Parts: sequence; structure tokens; C-alpha cells
Amino acid sequence: MSQTFYYNQGPLKILDILKTLNLKDNSFSEDIKVFDIKDLFSANTSDISFFHSKKYQGIAQKTKASFCITTQNLKNELPKNCKALIVENVLVSTAKITALFYPNAINDNFDETVLNISETEFNNKVKFGKNVLIGKNVSIGSNCSIGHNTIIEKNVSLGENCSIGSNTIIRNSLIKDNVKILDNCVIGKHGFGFFPMKNSNLRYPHIGIVIIEDNCEIGCGATIDRGSMSNTIIGKNTYLDNQIHIAHNVNIGENSIIAGQVGIAGSSIIGKNVRIGGQAGISGHLKIGDNVDIAGGSGVIKDIPNNTKVMGYPAKNIREFLRENK
Amino acid sequence: MSQTFYYNQGPLKILDILKTLNLKDNSFSEDIKVFDIKDLFSANTSDISFFHSKKYQGIAQKTKASFCITTQNLKNELPKNCKALIVENVLVSTAKITALFYPNAINDNFDETVLNISETEFNNKVKFGKNVLIGKNVSIGSNCSIGHNTIIEKNVSLGENCSIGSNTIIRNSLIKDNVKILDNCVIGKHGFGFFPMKNSNLRYPHIGIVIIEDNCEIGCGATIDRGSMSNTIIGKNTYLDNQIHIAHNVNIGENSIIAGQVGIAGSSIIGKNVRIGGQAGISGHLKIGDNVDIAGGSGVIKDIPNNTKVMGYPAKNIREFLRENK
Amino acid sequence: MSQTFYYNQGPLKILDILKTLNLKDNSFSEDIKVFDIKDLFSANTSDISFFHSKKYQGIAQKTKASFCITTQNLKNELPKNCKALIVENVLVSTAKITALFYPNAINDNFDETVLNISETEFNNKVKFGKNVLIGKNVSIGSNCSIGHNTIIEKNVSLGENCSIGSNTIIRNSLIKDNVKILDNCVIGKHGFGFFPMKNSNLRYPHIGIVIIEDNCEIGCGATIDRGSMSNTIIGKNTYLDNQIHIAHNVNIGENSIIAGQVGIAGSSIIGKNVRIGGQAGISGHLKIGDNVDIAGGSGVIKDIPNNTKVMGYPAKNIREFLRENK
Repeated sequence: MSQTFYYNQGPLKILDILKTLNLKDNSFSEDIKVFDIKDLFSANTSDISFFHSKKYQGIAQKTKASFCITTQNLKNELPKNCKALIVENVLVSTAKITALFYPNAINDNFDETVLNISETEFNNKVKFGKNVLIGKNVSIGSNCSIGHNTIIEKNVSLGENCSIGSNTIIRNSLIKDNVKILDNCVIGKHGFGFFPMKNSNLRYPHIGIVIIEDNCEIGCGATIDRGSMSNTIIGKNTYLDNQIHIAHNVNIGENSIIAGQVGIAGSSIIGKNVRIGGQAGISGHLKIGDNVDIAGGSGVIKDIPNNTKVMGYPAKNIREFLRENK
Repeated sequence: MSQTFYYNQGPLKILDILKTLNLKDNSFSEDIKVFDIKDLFSANTSDISFFHSKKYQGIAQKTKASFCITTQNLKNELPKNCKALIVENVLVSTAKITALFYPNAINDNFDETVLNISETEFNNKVKFGKNVLIGKNVSIGSNCSIGHNTIIEKNVSLGENCSIGSNTIIRNSLIKDNVKILDNCVIGKHGFGFFPMKNSNLRYPHIGIVIIEDNCEIGCGATIDRGSMSNTIIGKNTYLDNQIHIAHNVNIGENSIIAGQVGIAGSSIIGKNVRIGGQAGISGHLKIGDNVDIAGGSGVIKDIPNNTKVMGYPAKNIREFLRENK
Repeated sequence: MSQTFYYNQGPLKILDILKTLNLKDNSFSEDIKVFDIKDLFSANTSDISFFHSKKYQGIAQKTKASFCITTQNLKNELPKNCKALIVENVLVSTAKITALFYPNAINDNFDETVLNISETEFNNKVKFGKNVLIGKNVSIGSNCSIGHNTIIEKNVSLGENCSIGSNTIIRNSLIKDNVKILDNCVIGKHGFGFFPMKNSNLRYPHIGIVIIEDNCEIGCGATIDRGSMSNTIIGKNTYLDNQIHIAHNVNIGENSIIAGQVGIAGSSIIGKNVRIGGQAGISGHLKIGDNVDIAGGSGVIKDIPNNTKVMGYPAKNIREFLRENK
């Protein structure tokens, strides 16, 4: 969880948290304050956490959090020093409380803090095109270039020797050295994450960022969404072709090559030295091993072990697929 | 057929219409004027209509239109008070006459009417970024925000509490309340509709609009084309992820969720509470029922009844697909 | 190979070429100069060429090049007057030498030569929107229009009656008459061509261009990459729908129709009168004949003869596919 870029409104009064959850509990002192919301493992005694599935039972039993949003069924797994706040839907309630701590991580309206780059400290440090805009909390390394009409919105760090194309928008991102991002990209927007609700869905905050490691290249028209509770990561020297969509929390290893129009759904982990052909799609929450080849057009719906070549929809061993589809 | 936004050049002289169709008919008085072109059902006695397929026989027999573009084979179905104009290709001829009435619905060149928003009535009413342009016939409700470099071209109505991202272009669209449209979208451009002709295709007019109902969210890089003779509609509280293409005349019901890189071809009707996984494609002129789940990567080529889960290409019952593809 | 648009740094000293290839050879005179790098067939006595595969044996035996980058195994095929430069990886070495001659064909940073169109010779000749930028070596025919925020970067020729949308970027392209390019396109950027290397891939130069013939239409959000050693060509009166990706060196024939979100991988040749349905993908280095129909969603992985209809992944005869997938 990378909260560097989001302003934490905490500490919050526990009574305000209870109120947001529509809970009444007179056993709390008015003075109690909560400093942050974190997962069960990361939370400290000053924090609130959340526990929504039995599969996290082991971590729940050891959490240091003083408060935990959970259900009637799960509450007995929590240690004694962790007070359970019983709700009907843990994830919805967690979204509401995260939004209390990080209100700016929900609203992805345009960045009002931007100035024309010529009005900023970067005027003499960066090679830039016409109409380049720079938001607050931006740092830019030496020898970078930024193309026309590009907007580096707030909370962006660019390393050295980076080349950003034209008409591109970046926010909430940590871009390392020698990275090339081509034209018409949108990097660091919130992901497609919300709780479906009749008439008006409930968006949850995205407090992660996008991290693009050294020597990467991102093709034209890419969308790379930032993480919700973790980060979206593109590993060192990984190249993305045009029109690729990388959803929130995806983690791609180093030295991978991803061809045009590929889509990777949320929270999937892709190994290193992976090659993905054009238009292939990878479902969410999967683990793709190292040195994997995924043929163009494939649809991957389950984990793939290291050193495997797959093809088809659903993707299977490439030899098997080709034998069956002569 | 929504013609609110297109300037009707009518009434036109019937003799000019005949000339455009290369028809000679001395039985018409020079004085006769035609006010509009409409479908067989909507046309009034002052209008011209078109009739190109036997399946519209029932409506044709009752049309009030005074003139109808049709073929030798079909003309006898028309009522006595409707004069048949016999042509070889009804749809091509209809395109030509519609273009006479609505010349601005063919040409989708950039909007020359735009002004910088600071020069318009919206200067103090709307929160806006740098370099925002606003065309003629635009209305914007209270509490809206419009991002940098975004162009609201002519014929757009934005409701209240809308948030439009940066680098987005909108024209010929009716956007209702609490709608969020993210960055790099193009909304309301004409669809991919034309008659293939050797050496130079013939575009037909798109006189429909895009309607986006309350509480929708449209992801980055979306293209939503306006309708040709009807409208393209996104129902209430429907969310679209990044890089989605919605073709002309598509109608999506409320509370639907559509993941990244999905494409929906022209004139398909999607029900409410429909979920479509990433990269799925839906062919044109289909009817997808309510509460349908379409797995990511599927290719849908036939209608799908309510309450069905499908997967595969061609998409079929999901259990059947998974059983066959273990 | 179209080198019109790229400034050739030649003649170069042969000693500098040897140094770049880490070769030591004392048999060369310091005075020898090399004027250009060309393929075996096109090279003249003043040029260097490259020979990496036995299948070019016939052409190699007749090359006029005075120097040729090749391997120990292949060198004996070269004529006596062609001096072999022995390397381990011919293509990597060729990339390095091409980069020496054409350094500007590797670096696709934003075009620093642009001016606002109102400061150029086109101010009174072209209809243009706000914030239009024009680079060096651009020509524009009569009766063209260019939309807002569009950047015509260096090395672009626009014919007569062309309409370019808004937020579009074009470079290194030859656009003929009556061509329409819609919004948010990127035309003429280098392709996804590089040699994978651990930690830092090696890009090879793209010295081809994009050629778009008369009467074409390119939909919103297209990316059309320029060629590497040859050109990327869109034939006369071919129409592309939205969100299409055309990779480098692709050649599409005339009167073809390509629906939304299609992707065509590098170096494939598509015939004339071809129809490709939405989201179909075509692998690289294939030959698709004339009058071919490819159903939406298909994945084409082998050549397709003239007058064929295919469907599926891998794409096969459409009747066969539909029979097997009832």
C-alpha cells in the first residue's frame, strides 16, 4: 500500500467512523482516535483494518489493529485487543471508511493545480512542447522531454532521461529512469473498481499508484490504471505496444514484451520474460509465471506456470491447441 | 429519430428531390414541397419516407407519407395517397435525400463554432481547466467540471454534477445528471455507416445523437458513436471501463457493467443489469436480454435471452462451454 | 524503402562503421566512404547492405553493394567485389549501422520544430481549429481542414480536400487526396520493432513512412505505425472504423472495410475488397488475398487465399466453423 501521494485526513475520531457505518456503540470513549486504515497485516495499534473472508483467518488472528470492520460470523477470529465493528458488507463499509481517510483518492476530476510548465521550476530544466501543464507535487529528473498538450498532473515523479509523448496524461505515478511513454496515453487514473448498487454505484478509493521501472516503453493510447490498495507495476525494461489496457493492481515483471491491444484485468501478476501476442486478454487475479509465451488472441482464464507456451480461449498448451485446431 | 440537433433544410421542392434521384416524372406540380424525411411510421402527409424490405409491409400499408422511395416490386404495398418514387437501391437513395435535408449530419469536420470557455456564458458557472473549448448550442447544468484541452463541440447538453475529463471531445450528445466521462474519449461522432462503392464510398447521414443517462461513468479512451436514424443510448448507472467502443444506434440498459476493451457493433440492444467481461465483442443488430453475463473475451453472434450466462466464441451457455473446454 | 523524409547522415567513413560493429580490419583505406545502407537488391557500389538468411542467397550473389554485414556461414555467397563484415547477429548490427545513417528514425520524441499554424504559410490556405501545430517539411493541398489541438509533425504531406480531426498527431506520412482522419489518432509513429536485450532493448530505426491513398477514412483513436525498412500503406477508398491498430509495414489494398478494434500485426499484406469484422486480429507476416471476408472476433494465423470467407480462432472456412460450433 503506497500512501505517499494521498493526503491522509487522519487521525479521525472513532465516533465519526461509527457514524459513517451507522453503528451505535456506547462503549467507546469520545477521545479515541484512529490514524489510518490498513490491511490486517500492515495495521498498527493506532489503525483500523478490515476482515471479510475466512481465507485471511491466519492473519486476522495476529493483527495489531485496534479496530476491525468485519461480520458477525468472523468476529471471533480477531484477537482480544482488536474491537470488531460488525457490518453487513465488509468491503462496502471499508470503502466508505477509506474514503473518509483519503477523500482525494476517489474523485479523479481534472487536476486544478496545474500551471503551464513555463511558469514552473521546470522551465529551464526540461525540454518541452507547447501547452504542457504541470500539477502540484511533481518532480522531474535531468534530461527529460515532454511533448505538446501533455499534462503531468499532481503526484508524479519522473526519473532521468524520460521521454513523454504528446497528448498524454499522467497522475499519481512513479516513473523511473530512461522510460519512454508515447502519445495519447492515460497513466495513473483510478481503476474500474466500485461496488455495484442499484441506481448509483459506490466507487471505492484507489490509494495505490502506478510504478514504471527503468527502461520501459509504453506505446500510444495505453491506459494504465493505478492500484486500489496496492500498486500497479510495470517491471524494468518491459515494452508495451499500442492500445494496451493495464487494469489496477496489475504487476508485470521485467523484460516482458506485450503486443498491441492486449488487456490485463485487475490484480493479475505477470512474471518476467513474458511475451504476450496482440489482442490477448488475461483475466483478473491470475498468476502468470516467468518465461511464459501467450499467443496473440488468447484468452487466459487460469494461472500459468513458468516456462509455458499457451494459446487459445481458454488458453491451453500451445501444442495441444494447434493439434486440436488443424 | 431525434432531429433536435440537426438543422433541417426543408421544406424542399419535390422537383429537387426527383433530380437528386435522377428521376423524371412530369406528373408533379412545381409547387409541391416536402418538409422532412422520416420512417414509414413517423412520416406525416408533408413528408417523404422509404420502404426497402417486405418485412415493413404492414407499416408501409398504413403510412401517411405523401412520397416514398421504394422499388418496382414493393410499390404496390403503399396506400393510394402515397406516391412511389422507384429507384434501384432504396437505402442509397434514402441516404442521398436525407443528406439533402440534413447536410450537417454527414460532415463531421471539426467544429468551427467553438470559443474558449472563458469567452462564453459558462466562464463563471463551470469549473474548467486550461484550453477548454465550447461550441454553439451547448448547455451545462450546475456544478459541472470540464478538464484540460476538452472540446464540447456543438449540440451538447450536460446535466448537473457532471465531470468531464481532459482531452475529451463531445458533440451531438445529451448527457444527463451525475455523469462522469474520463479522459481521451470521443463521444457523438458519426458511426461507421456508409454504402460501399468502388473508388469512393457513400456516407449516409447520422441524424441521431448519443444519450447518456444519469449516474453513468465512461472510462478513458471510449468512443461512442451517435445514431444514424435512431439514437445511441447508455442507460442509467451503467459503467464503462477503459478503451470501449460503442457503435451507432446501440442501446444499453441501466445498471450494466462493461469491462475494458469491449466492442459493441451497430444497432445492438443490451438489457439492464448486464455484465460484460473485458475484450468481449457483440455483433450488430442483436438483442441481449436483462441480467445476462457475458464472459470476458467472448464473441456474441446471436441473441441472448434474459438471465443467461454465456462464454466463448461463438458465445454459448457458460457451463456447456467450460465442460467442452476443460 | 522510402528515405525521402529522413536525413541521411552519410557518407560515413568505413572506419566509423567498423568501430560501431567492434570490428578490426586493417585492410581498409581510411578514405573509403559509404553513402547509404540498403537491402541487397537496392544497394549500389557506394552502399553497405546486410545478408542474414540463406533464403536471400540468390539476391546476395548479385548485389552491387561494396560492403555487406553478414555471418561466417553466409559470406561465401557474396560476390568478389562485396566485402563481408562478419558479425554475430546480422540484424542487430544492421540496426546499429542504420541508426548511424538515420539517427532521427529511432528517436520519436515530440517534434520540437512545430509552430502554431497561424505563424506558418498555411495561415490563409487551410481551415484550422484552435491550437493547431505544424512541423518542418509539411505540405498541405487546397481545401483541407485541421481540427483543434491537432499536431502535424515534421515530414507530412497532405493532399487536397483532406479533413483531419481534433487531438490527432501525424508525422512521417504521405496522405493523398480526399482523406478523412478522425479524432485522437496517432499516425506515423515508429512501430513496435526492437531487438530484445536483457535490461535494455535495442530499438531499430524505422525509416519507412505511412502512405494513405485517396478517399480513405480513418476512424477515431487509430494508431497506424510507419514502416521500418518499407512503408505502411492503406489503399485507396479503404475505410477504418474506430480504435484500430495497424502495425509497421502492413499493406492494405483498396476498397477494403475494417470494423472497430481490429488489429493487424507487422508486415502483413491485406488484399483489396477485404472486409474484416470488429475485434478480429491478424498475425504478422501473413498474406490475405483479395475479396476475403474475415468475421468479427476471428484470429487469423495463416495466409488466406482470394475469395474466401473465414471465421474463428484460428480462423478457418466460415461454413466449417459454423458447422462445428452450432
